[in-house]
Amino acid sequence: MAFTDRVKQILSWYGSDNPGTVTQIARLLTTGTLAGTGKLVILPVDQGFEHGPLRSFGPNLDAHDPDYHFRLAIDAGCNAYAAPLGALEAGAAKFAGQIPLILKLNNSDSLSDVEPCSAITGSVDDALRLGCVAIGYTIYPGSGLRNTQYQDLRELTAEAKAKGLCVIVWAYPRGKGMSKEGETAIDVVAYAAHVSAQLGAHVIKIKPPTAHIEQPEAKKALEKAGIPIATLSDRVRYCVRAAFDGKRIVIFSGGAAKGTDEVVAEIKEINAGGGFGSILGRNAFQRSRADGLDLLRKVIGVYKA
Amino acid sequence: MAFTDRVKQILSWYGSDNPGTVTQIARLLTTGTLAGTGKLVILPVDQGFEHGPLRSFGPNLDAHDPDYHFRLAIDAGCNAYAAPLGALEAGAAKFAGQIPLILKLNNSDSLSDVEPCSAITGSVDDALRLGCVAIGYTIYPGSGLRNTQYQDLRELTAEAKAKGLCVIVWAYPRGKGMSKEGETAIDVVAYAAHVSAQLGAHVIKIKPPTAHIEQPEAKKALEKAGIPIATLSDRVRYCVRAAFDGKRIVIFSGGAAKGTDEVVAEIKEINAGGGFGSILGRNAFQRSRADGLDLLRKVIGVYKA
Amino acid sequence: MAFTDRVKQILSWYGSDNPGTVTQIARLLTTGTLAGTGKLVILPVDQGFEHGPLRSFGPNLDAHDPDYHFRLAIDAGCNAYAAPLGALEAGAAKFAGQIPLILKLNNSDSLSDVEPCSAITGSVDDALRLGCVAIGYTIYPGSGLRNTQYQDLRELTAEAKAKGLCVIVWAYPRGKGMSKEGETAIDVVAYAAHVSAQLGAHVIKIKPPTAHIEQPEAKKALEKAGIPIATLSDRVRYCVRAAFDGKRIVIFSGGAAKGTDEVVAEIKEINAGGGFGSILGRNAFQRSRADGLDLLRKVIGVYKA
Amino acid sequence: MAFTDRVKQILSWYGSDNPGTVTQIARLLTTGTLAGTGKLVILPVDQGFEHGPLRSFGPNLDAHDPDYHFRLAIDAGCNAYAAPLGALEAGAAKFAGQIPLILKLNNSDSLSDVEPCSAITGSVDDALRLGCVAIGYTIYPGSGLRNTQYQDLRELTAEAKAKGLCVIVWAYPRGKGMSKEGETAIDVVAYAAHVSAQLGAHVIKIKPPTAHIEQPEAKKALEKAGIPIATLSDRVRYCVRAAFDGKRIVIFSGGAAKGTDEVVAEIKEINAGGGFGSILGRNAFQRSRADGLDLLRKVIGVYKA
Amino acid sequence: MAFTDRVKQILSWYGSDNPGTVTQIARLLTTGTLAGTGKLVILPVDQGFEHGPLRSFGPNLDAHDPDYHFRLAIDAGCNAYAAPLGALEAGAAKFAGQIPLILKLNNSDSLSDVEPCSAITGSVDDALRLGCVAIGYTIYPGSGLRNTQYQDLRELTAEAKAKGLCVIVWAYPRGKGMSKEGETAIDVVAYAAHVSAQLGAHVIKIKPPTAHIEQPEAKKALEKAGIPIATLSDRVRYCVRAAFDGKRIVIFSGGAAKGTDEVVAEIKEINAGGGFGSILGRNAFQRSRADGLDLLRKVIGVYKA
Repeated sequence: MAFTDRVKQILSWYGSDNPGTVTQIARLLTTGTLAGTGKLVILPVDQGFEHGPLRSFGPNLDAHDPDYHFRLAIDAGCNAYAAPLGALEAGAAKFAGQIPLILKLNNSDSLSDVEPCSAITGSVDDALRLGCVAIGYTIYPGSGLRNTQYQDLRELTAEAKAKGLCVIVWAYPRGKGMSKEGETAIDVVAYAAHVSAQLGAHVIKIKPPTAHIEQPEAKKALEKAGIPIATLSDRVRYCVRAAFDGKRIVIFSGGAAKGTDEVVAEIKEINAGGGFGSILGRNAFQRSRADGLDLLRKVIGVYKA
Repeated sequence: MAFTDRVKQILSWYGSDNPGTVTQIARLLTTGTLAGTGKLVILPVDQGFEHGPLRSFGPNLDAHDPDYHFRLAIDAGCNAYAAPLGALEAGAAKFAGQIPLILKLNNSDSLSDVEPCSAITGSVDDALRLGCVAIGYTIYPGSGLRNTQYQDLRELTAEAKAKGLCVIVWAYPRGKGMSKEGETAIDVVAYAAHVSAQLGAHVIKIKPPTAHIEQPEAKKALEKAGIPIATLSDRVRYCVRAAFDGKRIVIFSGGAAKGTDEVVAEIKEINAGGGFGSILGRNAFQRSRADGLDLLRKVIGVYKA
Repeated sequence: MAFTDRVKQILSWYGSDNPGTVTQIARLLTTGTLAGTGKLVILPVDQGFEHGPLRSFGPNLDAHDPDYHFRLAIDAGCNAYAAPLGALEAGAAKFAGQIPLILKLNNSDSLSDVEPCSAITGSVDDALRLGCVAIGYTIYPGSGLRNTQYQDLRELTAEAKAKGLCVIVWAYPRGKGMSKEGETAIDVVAYAAHVSAQLGAHVIKIKPPTAHIEQPEAKKALEKAGIPIATLSDRVRYCVRAAFDGKRIVIFSGGAAKGTDEVVAEIKEINAGGGFGSILGRNAFQRSRADGLDLLRKVIGVYKA
Repeated sequence: MAFTDRVKQILSWYGSDNPGTVTQIARLLTTGTLAGTGKLVILPVDQGFEHGPLRSFGPNLDAHDPDYHFRLAIDAGCNAYAAPLGALEAGAAKFAGQIPLILKLNNSDSLSDVEPCSAITGSVDDALRLGCVAIGYTIYPGSGLRNTQYQDLRELTAEAKAKGLCVIVWAYPRGKGMSKEGETAIDVVAYAAHVSAQLGAHVIKIKPPTAHIEQPEAKKALEKAGIPIATLSDRVRYCVRAAFDGKRIVIFSGGAAKGTDEVVAEIKEINAGGGFGSILGRNAFQRSRADGLDLLRKVIGVYKA
Repeated sequence: MAFTDRVKQILSWYGSDNPGTVTQIARLLTTGTLAGTGKLVILPVDQGFEHGPLRSFGPNLDAHDPDYHFRLAIDAGCNAYAAPLGALEAGAAKFAGQIPLILKLNNSDSLSDVEPCSAITGSVDDALRLGCVAIGYTIYPGSGLRNTQYQDLRELTAEAKAKGLCVIVWAYPRGKGMSKEGETAIDVVAYAAHVSAQLGAHVIKIKPPTAHIEQPEAKKALEKAGIPIATLSDRVRYCVRAAFDGKRIVIFSGGAAKGTDEVVAEIKEINAGGGFGSILGRNAFQRSRADGLDLLRKVIGVYKA
């Protein structure tokens, strides 16, 4: 398969990676409806672990079945499907090769009252034996356990790259020294994207940033530089720039479930701002299968246009 | 031995596991009186370690002898016998091959006042040299030491699966941020079952859940979804669903010793709710041998019917 | 499952082995129609590798399918099925747990003209991941490459025993200093059985010995001791004695395909001489499935009587 | 040397161990004046490390010399001598083979004020190179560092058993959640003996228990079961039972130095209660050599009678 | 146990060995009827492997049973029993601790026509797990494969000494450049004893040397030095001297079976010449048990006198 110029351009940013890892990034970029466009829409399903099965799958009981999500991602034309160990093991044999898989290597439940730090629940070798293209790892910049997370990620990243896998970082600022608003502040989200790039991520997932600015020094710098942040497009544009001037793939989470029009409007802004794509979980599976498919296809349509 | 359709169906859920691990799951499902039914009754004896010998074996002094439990499990027609390292070593040579064994790899005594986290007291290689079909591991979702437990389990699970063993997780929610009632709340128990499945467990042991709901968000989700939880059967049904829509084997502990009729009534509810079986310790050995055998056989009878 | 006295007696001979290994020997002795009798009938299918597919499966084209042999062994009520890596991998997932498996760890094709010495084509870890109860290994006592074989076997045996597996040695005398007749001579076959026992085998497979005597010193010793060797029963009896006075399981190969009556007559002699069983390949699968099943069941019937 | 029936019976309890480990247990049971009786008197000298040389060897200055203790144990007819690395290294060459040695693998000094947890000060390979029959390890059930200790012991035990050594556990309950009286309470001491057995100990050393009961639930269980604890004999009997119904060797420490008659009276009670022997340090060496020998011989005499 | 001066003297020669190894040498010297005398009589049974079961056990059919030899060595009061892996595994659990065991680590069958070089059939770790005091290894000085043997021995010796085991070398000159007579020539046998000492052996087994001299230069040297070799005693005396002036334990094989008087006469010469003892196989077990016991006791009697 000859690659599009855009795919070639994106792959050119990862010249220090071995050809195995680049091959996996290429798989992400050449699968599904968005193949060749340089855009990605990924289905992630770790909410059962993070928020519990009732809150996650109560709105659509069929979503308790791991097979449901493999099928949804494949039928919607997604670029990849991401989940924790158990969920991937439940379907990886049956759907082997039908869609790129991402193994979420750390996860956190909502039962313990601990400093934000996910448990490592899978390994790079698990990713290999399950046929994944990438590992996924969540960091909480701002957590008192930041160092544990960055250091664990460093080791997993080194191993994944040596074994020819791609690394995707979920960057969610959170912790004692940060306001609730600050978790999605433009300065903080852009900062988290940059840290992820520095940690060696090939793909970075962040939340759509708000216009709030958490750090006074950042506020001063932003105003001085005259960087616009009024619209989501503006803010997305800066976040992408913060990740090595757009030379790392930055994608955006969808957040809590909402109406289809609302989702599509947000995606249009992300796309207009140069976002590389979306990673939509709850909005995709907390609807009936027909509605979920419809939403995902509309989102994909925005990026494809 | 040709397998029943039900056994084949259950084994089909573990397609990502190697044939060695599937063979061990098959051994659990094709041993004892319930062979072929897809149901399991397991005798676990770790109470001496967990609660001390007096509280555990005081009610039936003969139960101090490790041989007693091997014989009880074999004679009752159980699917397997589970115990810590020392107890298995005491009888594994004498009873080699007579019943599938499960090595409990972590245990906790009641002498220390520590954050809930069991000590690792055995290894996967111990399980191999003792001829076990599975390792067992207890997690305390809700504990401040959750991450230590999940990560230790991850390593043990990876090793066990590579070496062709089955993994059984004892999921007991417990910890500072949780009420005593919450430890058996339907939302919390279902959540613990789901987390166990995500961590890669083949078999999940939980406590029979109560109708209490611990987390407000879960309460809302549950009511909105209209999931019935009035009877134990209802609650068992949802817990099984929470573990990959019934595609993981979920079994239920018996709890503190009680009357035979009471036990049997509870088992009937578990069975009606689609529970895969029971793991009964104190109710089985804190009676005379004759009464223990009688109880186990009645319980097995319920699942066999 | 309570064991028969005979099974208990046989297991008692392996007191230096860990309970894991004893468990696997027990599985061999408690599976299939002969469960509990202390006798074994095993289906081995490595002839495709050893003699080529045309010579092996030409007489019964259906036998080209690896599934065929799993089904034949299961349906006939055999104790186990033995094959090289590829053939086991082809069916181990589908038939997981339905019959004890033996992984033949070394094999030799008939395309090279080399000093008799099989290539090692599998590992102990392969046996674990495929769910096997035993490894199998062929030695050629008499070969100039004897030391390579004995030493490789020593390492595989140490590893298999540490990991709770059983070791089965195929002992086929062969080599430059030996006449063709000598390969099945009573003195040579008994010698090979003894060497296998000394190398640590739990189960020893030899060919039915002839009344030929290869070594002059052995002839003298045999005559002086007055050991009868006139009938096959006599010779089987001495071979069993040569393997630690009957304290190792010695089973007999069936050799080239022949008529059912001829096979059954030979089995009767082996049984009368105290042989522990048979390992029948070509006679079982170089017939139609119906005839193969019929033959295996007749052979099993002889041992069961 | 043919063994007595009692020695054979005791060895039969260790059927899951390899012959190397059983050989070492046999050495303990067939050395010294008590050879063949199934009883043991061991000289342990780690008090210099635990309490300092002044408190330990002040009462008998000659005991500063490591040779002193080798000679005392040999001349008194003890079954074994136990000490930390340095003390064994000081005499192991000179007295090689004259008495079974036990290497205490962890030790604690009284200079630091830390949560009870001894430092690991020797290795299994040290035990091999010094010619020891066993490793010794102290656990403090009740300590907040319980998990560290149990897990370290697990690894050392696995290695020792693989290399054909015996494992002796010193079980001394101690920690924040326990009263000073509770450290020798019958329920707590029996619990510690049981935990040691579950951790895989071949020989368990505990303190003579008092009639105090620490845990309310244990008190209830004990009274309901009608287990007598009025005399030391009664209490010893239950502790032995708590260790796998008497199928593990349980021996008793002598505690602080006291009069000979007092020691002998206590030993008579331990013997009457079915204790397997004593491990006497301070009472043996905090006297003149003549008195120490006299005391040890009297104690041995009680067990021999 | 206090040691005799002779045992202490012998142990003093091994001052560079760790106490573990010295402990094992001490065990050899303090077991059986000859305990404390500095003399040894060992029962070796590897003839089944070396010459085949018919030639080895034909003269006394009961000797096919591995238990037979354990019992014979124990009942006769031997210092140790030596055998290959399989034979030791067959009895090591049952007779654990009753007699020091020596694992013969290499063995050769008489079926192949190969350059003299035994196969390595056991490991140092096997010796540990079976509870052996020593490893045994055969070298064929004179073989074209000498270097392979010396180098394998070097590695096994280094490992055995690090793990606290004793090393016994069977030194049998043999090979193309040597006459049949030369294999037992005084110069050659003494040379082989010296080579064994240089290779690090603690105990050296050689054949009783004849008065034949194989090497012309040796003949000259011997005559010049005026070393007497007329009687077996003379020759034994020189062989002992050749092994570090008597500072290594040198023992003598018994050779082919012969009459009791003949054996006893030979032993008397060996003893008179300062030989440390005998290692008698065929003469011990190729008789009825009563006669074998009688012979062994007479031989032991000679050394004890």
